[in-house]
Amino acid sequence: MPLWNVYHPVSAYSDEEKREFAGRVTSLYQAAGLPRFYSVTLFHEVDRGSFYVGGEPVDDRVRVTIDHIARHAEDPARRESVRQRIGAVIQAFATSKGLRCEFHIDETPRELWMIDGLLPPPTGSEAEKLWARENRAIPY
Amino acid sequence: MPLWNVYHPVSAYSDEEKREFAGRVTSLYQAAGLPRFYSVTLFHEVDRGSFYVGGEPVDDRVRVTIDHIARHAEDPARRESVRQRIGAVIQAFATSKGLRCEFHIDETPRELWMIDGLLPPPTGSEAEKLWARENRAIPY
Amino acid sequence: MPLWNVYHPVSAYSDEEKREFAGRVTSLYQAAGLPRFYSVTLFHEVDRGSFYVGGEPVDDRVRVTIDHIARHAEDPARRESVRQRIGAVIQAFATSKGLRCEFHIDETPRELWMIDGLLPPPTGSEAEKLWARENRAIPY
Repeated sequence: MPLWNVYHPVSAYSDEEKREFAGRVTSLYQAAGLPRFYSVTLFHEVDRGSFYVGGEPVDDRVRVTIDHIARHAEDPARRESVRQRIGAVIQAFATSKGLRCEFHIDETPRELWMIDGLLPPPTGSEAEKLWARENRAIPY
Repeated sequence: MPLWNVYHPVSAYSDEEKREFAGRVTSLYQAAGLPRFYSVTLFHEVDRGSFYVGGEPVDDRVRVTIDHIARHAEDPARRESVRQRIGAVIQAFATSKGLRCEFHIDETPRELWMIDGLLPPPTGSEAEKLWARENRAIPY
Repeated sequence: MPLWNVYHPVSAYSDEEKREFAGRVTSLYQAAGLPRFYSVTLFHEVDRGSFYVGGEPVDDRVRVTIDHIARHAEDPARRESVRQRIGAVIQAFATSKGLRCEFHIDETPRELWMIDGLLPPPTGSEAEKLWARENRAIPY
């Protein structure tokens, strides 16, 4: 958690820009107390002949799908806050390239998740804080 | 919403056929009152050595994953109707190529969704109708 | 169901190894009574410049996303068992290549699922057993 899949036009971003994008994503979640290595961002080039919006081929969109596993936003105010902060990051990286953007987030069960053979420790636990400090999965 | 990811054999569809496929998908949702630009369809070629069904490599399948965000099918009758109408479109584009097919739909939270920095307007609202008429995201 | 998407470094696995991996996945679900052809495994190469963990580019990870449709794990004990058995398969195929791994599972609605134009038969039904024996979708 979180897993971001970023679908974008061919050659829209250099490797350095993708790294910067993924770094901004990671910082969002680190600010919420999550270990940095929880954040996984995969970039996928989709050519114009394979990318359709409203039935028409496009090469000016970024479409992001996000899975949240470790933390779920329980109430409307929290959901709005999550939406706005994530939206701001995606918009910055889209508009800087003259692209339009869309994203949506799914929330999946925490107990059906594993990193390096371990169930990640409970939210706010000492073990989670240790994982965050050490930035790696440690048996607990 | 909706997001369709279509995994298919290499060179199964020409760009023109993909456009037709995406157009049929878009029309399905437009008939339900959704703006055309809500419909995003991404096509992904998967070679035989990377596509397994029942543990065996295949090059005769179309596997579609669908995320529904703007509308959820609440009751069994509605769910069957959604399943049948979507199934008919996918089957038409699979069998025309001698392919077999499978799809499944996930439903994700409407409030965790954004297009061009905006939360899409509520179901059936005047703003949603305007977005549908203008076929673009408009601040409301 | 199940659908596995396996994101891995370029050339991490040969076609023969992918087949073996998909075979092990399939056997897991067959042991639970599911027809073998329900199991779909797609492998996706992701180059180092497109694969980020904690904001840094990596080429030593396998990231697996899994959708469960036909069966959901209802209680904590069952969830743990599912997690452990799936985790063991993924870890075996990661560590054999010196890779680290992460996976998560989503559970999606059974009624929004179709194979070759058919709604798969109910859990434990005679029709499901027939599908498993014949290893194909049969009108019922």
